[in-house]
Parts: sequence; structure tokens; C-alpha cells
Amino acid sequence: MKTISENRCFGGVQGVYTHASQATGTDMTFGLFLPEGAEDGPVPLLWYLSGLTCTHENAMVKAGAQRWAAEAGIALIFPDTSPRGEGVANDEAYDLGQGAGFYVNATESPWAPHFSMWDYVTDELPDLVFRAFPLEETLQAITGHSMGGHGALTIAMSLPGRFSSVSAFAPICNPSASDWGRKQFTAYLGKDESAWAPHDATLLMRKRGFDGPVLIDQGTADQFIDLLKPEALASAMTERRQGGTFRMQKGYDHSYFFVSSFIEDHIAFHADALMG
Amino acid sequence: MKTISENRCFGGVQGVYTHASQATGTDMTFGLFLPEGAEDGPVPLLWYLSGLTCTHENAMVKAGAQRWAAEAGIALIFPDTSPRGEGVANDEAYDLGQGAGFYVNATESPWAPHFSMWDYVTDELPDLVFRAFPLEETLQAITGHSMGGHGALTIAMSLPGRFSSVSAFAPICNPSASDWGRKQFTAYLGKDESAWAPHDATLLMRKRGFDGPVLIDQGTADQFIDLLKPEALASAMTERRQGGTFRMQKGYDHSYFFVSSFIEDHIAFHADALMG
Repeated sequence: MKTISENRCFGGVQGVYTHASQATGTDMTFGLFLPEGAEDGPVPLLWYLSGLTCTHENAMVKAGAQRWAAEAGIALIFPDTSPRGEGVANDEAYDLGQGAGFYVNATESPWAPHFSMWDYVTDELPDLVFRAFPLEETLQAITGHSMGGHGALTIAMSLPGRFSSVSAFAPICNPSASDWGRKQFTAYLGKDESAWAPHDATLLMRKRGFDGPVLIDQGTADQFIDLLKPEALASAMTERRQGGTFRMQKGYDHSYFFVSSFIEDHIAFHADALMG
Repeated sequence: MKTISENRCFGGVQGVYTHASQATGTDMTFGLFLPEGAEDGPVPLLWYLSGLTCTHENAMVKAGAQRWAAEAGIALIFPDTSPRGEGVANDEAYDLGQGAGFYVNATESPWAPHFSMWDYVTDELPDLVFRAFPLEETLQAITGHSMGGHGALTIAMSLPGRFSSVSAFAPICNPSASDWGRKQFTAYLGKDESAWAPHDATLLMRKRGFDGPVLIDQGTADQFIDLLKPEALASAMTERRQGGTFRMQKGYDHSYFFVSSFIEDHIAFHADALMG
């Protein structure tokens, strides 16, 4: 693992690191914020999964999360959203290929050799960071934005016991029924929709739910709201009697101005679940 | 004036606007955050001047300022750092020409036709925004980062009575004695150093000071600290008995991680001066 940069930030350190990934067969870069308290011992970890077109960097510089993570004494990890580089398959569309891994393990050509973001985020990267940094493996929570909200919700429901709490900003809620999902799942996972179901937050919510608190924020002026299908997840949550909060935030769109406006609430929510 | 974008942000609106500038002879773009309270009437305005290579956008998306401006009920304006575009002189170096206006009116060729950032920021842009938005002209404060800190300090001291308070993050403190200054002043203002003096915060502090509170933050691990010369301004402030605070922040560098770590303090400082 190689250190790309480390910057003092809110009394802690915002680092960027790169490492050779076996899951993706490429070098992968991630951001990690360690609060000041990490100098004295392991701290809880909040995963932040980003959306389409993002790298490890977008949320790290635009979400304003470190302020609240520092206050709560929680670390933040910002993985990349796909493998990248020459020799890695890609597509001209912004929503397929590099920058659009969708947090699945691709089984189809040409994606299968590198696009194993599920394994990367749920297995390899945790192994790496819990060995290398003062992070408490028993205290993890997860959040994300848009495609990353989809990732956070599906991962949290698929790995019961790992995360104390899950939240999402404008998540892709029902990808099996959306153009943000059907296209990518067909490309990465093939035409058999039974392979898609484990990666659809609405279907997972109907089937198993999440054993812990859930917080969803969705802007009413989100320019992508028809693709996100918040109504599907809200229905599934209420029908299941899932403990959680689903907030429609009046006038907010899909941008980081929306994420940064509510990140304080999300970190307080996770801090309460992790340490309250 | 044309609206480029408007995003709901912390209950207010983060807008980006463009207009034809007479001062620069180009189109100019700026960001303006209006807190929720601006719906009910004019609000105070904090100017944020950015540093080398920045546009109107960097601080707007990376400084995390809106959270605190919303809480304080203060508007934020983020001007660009120079004229831009084809037909505008430029230089291959990052620290001269486009993105490096240094908040002066250039008198020398080839810069004179467009590089009038002093007039733009102190005269034309205020005229425009006080006419177009619910902003209280009698309640203004100013801050900035690096070259923008230089701009904030020199403008505040040169226009007594306009700003209630001035602050800066890692400002270029003594450009007449630095490679961040001598090169640019020679290019923009010519070789006669008497034309430089009105644009040197340390010289202005020695000569006239500021009639209001001053707050300076400087990181001890700043990679550009030798170019910034904080010792010159700190000496001038103390020798003058200028009311103010000069903080050396241990371990912080020159990045926006430094700015975002302390923007809360700066906005609280200005809010107190504006409305306390």
C-alpha cells in the first residue's frame, strides 16, 4: 500500500492510499479520514460509497463529512466506484464501465476480469484497512449517495451483523425496474434477472430487511428522481415495518449541495447507532 | 446576468451566475450563497476571495462554508480569480495570468486590457449584486485563501468603513518580498515598486492597519509558507498594536482541508463583527 497524500483535517488526518487489488486486478485508490482519537486506539468506521462518475475523491472533498466525523470520533472510508486504467473495459456512457461499478461482481464479458466491486468493498478493502489502520472492526456503519446509496443498502442487508446502521442519500432504490440498473445489471450480470435480485435494495428490503436503524434522505427536486424510485423503497420499508426514517427533503436536488446539507444528520445517526 | 445553476443548500440557495463585465471586458462567473433568511429581506454578505488556479467554484464546493453561513444568516460570494477565455492574455505558469489575477488593476502589456480584478471585486461586482439580490450593503465582511487572503487584507485596509471585519487563511502576506508577488507585480504593475505598495498587506498594515477585528490562520506544515511570509504580517500587526488574532495551526498545510477545518471559526468571527 502506498500513501498518495495525507493532510491534517479537523485535528485528524485525511489520507489517500493506493494498493494492488486482487479483486479487481488493478491498482485501487481510496480515501481514509482518521479522527484525532485514532492516535489513542481503534475507532469506529463509517463507509461512504459514491455514485456514478465519482472517484474516491468527490465525497472526500465535497461532502463536508470530516467535520462531523471528527466530532463523533469516527473514521470515514471513501472507496473508488470501479476499477480504472488501460486494459480495463469501459463504455462511452457515463453510467457503464469505469466510474459505474454498481457494487456487483460482473460475470459477463468484457466486464468480468476487473469489475468485482462487491468483493472489493465487502472483503478485500476491509481486510486491508483493518490490518493497516487503527479501526475497530466490530464498529462499522455504511452510507452512500445515488449508486453508492444502492451499494450501501444492498451490502448492509446482505451482510447481517456487520453494520450497526445504514443510511443513504438519494439511493438508486429499485435498479431492477430502472434504467439506472437494468442496463448495468444486463451488462455485468447477464439477462437472468434472478442474478439481479441480491443487488436490488427494494427486493432485499421486502425479503429480509435490515436488523438496525435505517435513514434515507431524498430531495424532492432531484433531477434523477424517476430513475431512483424512492417510492418503491419507501413502500417496501413500511410494508415490512422496517425501523427507519425516510425523509423527502423539499427543494433539494441530486448534487453534493444536498449531501453536504444533511451529512451532519447522517453521521450523528450512525454515531448514535455505533456508540449510543 | 444569467443564471448558470441554483441548488438548494442548507435551507438556502447556492447559485452560480455569469455576466458581462466592463471592468475585465469579459464574461465573469461568480457563486452566491443566500441563506434562507434572504427570503424575508436583505442579509449580511461575506466575500470569499480564492487563491491561485482557483475559479469561483473551488471554495464553493470544498470549503464547507455554507453550513455556517446558513446558521449565521449570512450570504457568501465567491468571485472568480481572473478574467478568462480566448483573447485574454495568459502565461504557461500557474501563478501568472488566468487564475492568478492577484486582485490588482494591471497597467502593463499584455495584461492591462482585461486584468482589472481590483475594480471588478471592489466596484463592479458589488454594484451588480447589491442591485440584484437581497443583500445588506452596510453589512459586509471579507475573507480569502492564499492569493485571496492577500486580496481580502489589501482590499479591507484600502476601503476603510466598508468591511466590519477581515480574515484570511494562509494569506500571501508580503508579496513585494516574495516570489509570489514580485513576479506578478512586475508583470501587471511594472517595475516601479511604489505601485506595488498599495497591494502588500504587510506594508498596508504598517501604514494604516484595519479599523475592526482581524483573524489570520496559517498552517505550520504549509508547503508554501516560505512564499507566504506570515512572520512579516504578524510582526506588522503586533508592532502596530492592531486588534486581531494570528493563529499558527499545528500540522495543517495549504489545502482546502485546512480551510474547511477552520471556516466555522471564521464565519463565527465575521458574524460576531457584523451582527454581534
